[in-house]
Amino acid sequence: MAITVVGSVAFDTVETPAGRRERCLAGAATYFSLAASFFTDVRVIAVVGEDFSASEQAVFDAHKIDTTGIQHAPGKTFFWQGSYLDNLNEAKTLQTDLNVFAGFEPRIPDAYRDSQFLFLANIDPVLQRRVREATPQAKLVAGDTMNYWIKDHKPALLEVLKGLDILLINDTEARMLAGNNNLVLAARAVMEMGPRMLVVKHGEYGATLFHKAIPGAQESHTFKSPAFPLEQVTDPTGAGDSLAGGFFGYLASQRELTPGAFRRAMFYGSVMGSFTVEGFGTERLQQLTRDEIDDRFKLFRELTHLD
Amino acid sequence: MAITVVGSVAFDTVETPAGRRERCLAGAATYFSLAASFFTDVRVIAVVGEDFSASEQAVFDAHKIDTTGIQHAPGKTFFWQGSYLDNLNEAKTLQTDLNVFAGFEPRIPDAYRDSQFLFLANIDPVLQRRVREATPQAKLVAGDTMNYWIKDHKPALLEVLKGLDILLINDTEARMLAGNNNLVLAARAVMEMGPRMLVVKHGEYGATLFHKAIPGAQESHTFKSPAFPLEQVTDPTGAGDSLAGGFFGYLASQRELTPGAFRRAMFYGSVMGSFTVEGFGTERLQQLTRDEIDDRFKLFRELTHLD
Repeated sequence: MAITVVGSVAFDTVETPAGRRERCLAGAATYFSLAASFFTDVRVIAVVGEDFSASEQAVFDAHKIDTTGIQHAPGKTFFWQGSYLDNLNEAKTLQTDLNVFAGFEPRIPDAYRDSQFLFLANIDPVLQRRVREATPQAKLVAGDTMNYWIKDHKPALLEVLKGLDILLINDTEARMLAGNNNLVLAARAVMEMGPRMLVVKHGEYGATLFHKAIPGAQESHTFKSPAFPLEQVTDPTGAGDSLAGGFFGYLASQRELTPGAFRRAMFYGSVMGSFTVEGFGTERLQQLTRDEIDDRFKLFRELTHLD
Repeated sequence: MAITVVGSVAFDTVETPAGRRERCLAGAATYFSLAASFFTDVRVIAVVGEDFSASEQAVFDAHKIDTTGIQHAPGKTFFWQGSYLDNLNEAKTLQTDLNVFAGFEPRIPDAYRDSQFLFLANIDPVLQRRVREATPQAKLVAGDTMNYWIKDHKPALLEVLKGLDILLINDTEARMLAGNNNLVLAARAVMEMGPRMLVVKHGEYGATLFHKAIPGAQESHTFKSPAFPLEQVTDPTGAGDSLAGGFFGYLASQRELTPGAFRRAMFYGSVMGSFTVEGFGTERLQQLTRDEIDDRFKLFRELTHLD
């Protein structure tokens, strides 16, 4: 089944203890699309500027990603510059130029209308909601958000949550959104806001899937996937978006959304996130093969399974 | 196989968001012994004061823990008072009275001489080393330590590490000991100091077992066990010592120390830690049954296994 994703396509300049890269192809929709493209057909809605050249287009084309929904606007593509020199777990933003993204009005191509899977990457909840409402045929809708929207745009975000099946969020943000420091209680509170599932990302400690609890059996309504123990994290940018792409891409590739499919999707999500941080920007995803993905999936099983 | 453990028996007064308890029976050797006693015979070496009464002795007796090695000294038992009101993940120490522990000289009863498993709980590395040297028959030796010894008593600690098979340590301490912020590299550096295995505790995120890597297959020399997602953490004190007790107790109960035995031991360790934090001090461990342990072990499997 095809996925439609709306979000940012960007150029990033990053510095990390491993080095520095200028203007990597990045942005949440890019990471998500590349990661998901290993599992299913992906259709992107985004906006780029005149500096988005044939070589960037070629990256999407090589992964058979439908870019009909990428608008080309006069001006420059969204640009972000950040540093992880002080803390590999949290970027320090040095510069953000919204550029063409400032006036982004998502438009959904007719050819995308039959997408049954919709992913709302981390953008203004007003735009997320607009895209959600324009795609009533979607049978599974997932989305991401961040602290900025939780703090300063909560009413708009709460409207988006009502239309989500699955929210992906990191643990600090889940606690902030729920106003509860206990993660189990925070997850339950967020699920009361709309989504029936939550993928809580713990950075280097993996991720947890929470479902709505059935009374008396709540504990088994949680599933944990590990993070890969890496000797070197080259650039953490995009790990969460790639996790989302692996998770949602795998789900979209399944005939039936069984509990087992969600468990495997969590593992594929962690696998994709672990590859992304091995290179700057989307470099590692661009070079990746399906065999490498499946080999790492097996390693993840070994890391966590008793036999 | 019997385990000998040396460490502290203490009274703790704690306050947490869940309430306050005066003078709970606590101490690293107590948590360890109770947790391990569900799996194997345990023999304790410690010191207590005149305030250690028949009711405390009864707790050890009820779990068939050999207390021949607990010395009774004039004065009071080690006392600690702490608060978790500000941060459930880190205690603020309000008072520490070493009392009889200040002059503690571990003595190993003759009846303990055939213990093949030795656990050196978190005490002065000078004492840990003395006990290690006095038990040359031990075939598997594990130990714990803390930031205080790493910072201010590193030479003595390094001597202890040379005699350990397994070090249990939390992740901040592993990074501090190795002087490396990457956990994989830190684990490898610590294993160069002596132990061939490391159990790195991540608090609410579970624990990771690192073995010495075989070239070309290093990734599979890691195993992750989850932490149980708890709705309420009553008192985090002793979680790590209980994890150690479940881990080492399970190993001591096994005929052969296969890779599978270490994996199951990691799960049993996490299980025991998860019970401890459900009550104040050792209250929950005192009431626990083996059936509850095995049920939670099954839940841990469901939390992490694909099928």
